[in-house]
Amino acid sequence: MSGMDKTQPKAVVLLSGGLDSATILAIAKSKGLACYAISVAYGQRHAAELQAAVQVARHLGVKEHRVVDINLAAFGGSALTDARLTVPTTPAEGIPITYVPARNTVFLSLALAWAEVCEARAIYIGVNAVDYSGYPDCRPDFIKAFESVANLGTRAGVSGDRFVIEAPLISLSKAEIINLGQQLGVDYSLTVSCYQADDRGRVCGLCDSCRIRVSGFQAAGVVDPTRYA
Amino acid sequence: MSGMDKTQPKAVVLLSGGLDSATILAIAKSKGLACYAISVAYGQRHAAELQAAVQVARHLGVKEHRVVDINLAAFGGSALTDARLTVPTTPAEGIPITYVPARNTVFLSLALAWAEVCEARAIYIGVNAVDYSGYPDCRPDFIKAFESVANLGTRAGVSGDRFVIEAPLISLSKAEIINLGQQLGVDYSLTVSCYQADDRGRVCGLCDSCRIRVSGFQAAGVVDPTRYA
Repeated sequence: MSGMDKTQPKAVVLLSGGLDSATILAIAKSKGLACYAISVAYGQRHAAELQAAVQVARHLGVKEHRVVDINLAAFGGSALTDARLTVPTTPAEGIPITYVPARNTVFLSLALAWAEVCEARAIYIGVNAVDYSGYPDCRPDFIKAFESVANLGTRAGVSGDRFVIEAPLISLSKAEIINLGQQLGVDYSLTVSCYQADDRGRVCGLCDSCRIRVSGFQAAGVVDPTRYA
Repeated sequence: MSGMDKTQPKAVVLLSGGLDSATILAIAKSKGLACYAISVAYGQRHAAELQAAVQVARHLGVKEHRVVDINLAAFGGSALTDARLTVPTTPAEGIPITYVPARNTVFLSLALAWAEVCEARAIYIGVNAVDYSGYPDCRPDFIKAFESVANLGTRAGVSGDRFVIEAPLISLSKAEIINLGQQLGVDYSLTVSCYQADDRGRVCGLCDSCRIRVSGFQAAGVVDPTRYA
């Protein structure tokens, strides 16, 4: 077994507990990668997401799952980290108030730190630039730029042992993501997409993230097993 | 006063408590920037560095100083975060074991998060690629790549309100840095450069960082006010 472990390529997978990141974990697994899942307790409004991440990691199977604490709520500036701001329940123009400043840059940098140490060279992130909230750090140019950072700013990278930031959902519709995940055995009842779920994981059905999810399941022709509050 | 504050441009300054970061804070101040200093408690071997950061911020004057916790020691892989590894006291070939995986990427991402919220568009980092330990995340290409990430992955960046990563020491010798800092009123007795200082800030004089500092002060013709153990 340990001999097999040594030759099996590894991936660090950013696992939020939502629909997209559960799907990328299943994709990484389907490619035969040994998966190291990382979730970030960043001061988000609710704990349901992180509880979901634990369930998803257990269900799909990972080598290790780590929850890292970094209090982005100390900086504020987002309805997801500042309880005084209201999560919008109608679509907004431009980048919404649920945008968390530099969140994916912080998440990727933590994934990179772990990847370098555990000798994973692939980092999976479930960003999507089709059915999404319009966040700048979900777009292909950003992912490419971070890949350059990873390869210029690490010992592994400059040694020619290149990191690849894998964003396999980036150009899929939400319906395509759901269909793919179903083929790969993702149990979407374990995932929580809502920006303001309650502590039991029940969702509002109204926020941007819920609306995108509802439309996605409808377009996919699949019944969403999520629990509404 | 508040009118003045609004028009004064702001900078987030990464302040470790060492010689270089104290100097960049003085540089940023000399340019008339309102400085927001950020230090990171990342699981480093000793607390003396962070205590020094507090002293330096107080001495030079900042709008605010925040110490952010992110436990990179949980990932390990460096003599600076893993007490079981020994800090070398003789020069090594290549990138030394004191390299902390992805450290400056993590630090810059946190500085970026704060900068976006507090509306600073300059981020100062005291990296140096001349008299340094050979870390990949201290080189100009890395800094440029991170600047791209900052401008592609944030609301401010994509809105055309560009971030600039300022690394004013990157091509200076340690002696030049020290002379510049002296002109700008840096009190180097407050700074701690050692990789393994004791809790009272007394340094070993033998590690890579101490050796670079000692040579720098000698070349600058300045007496180092640091305290040796």
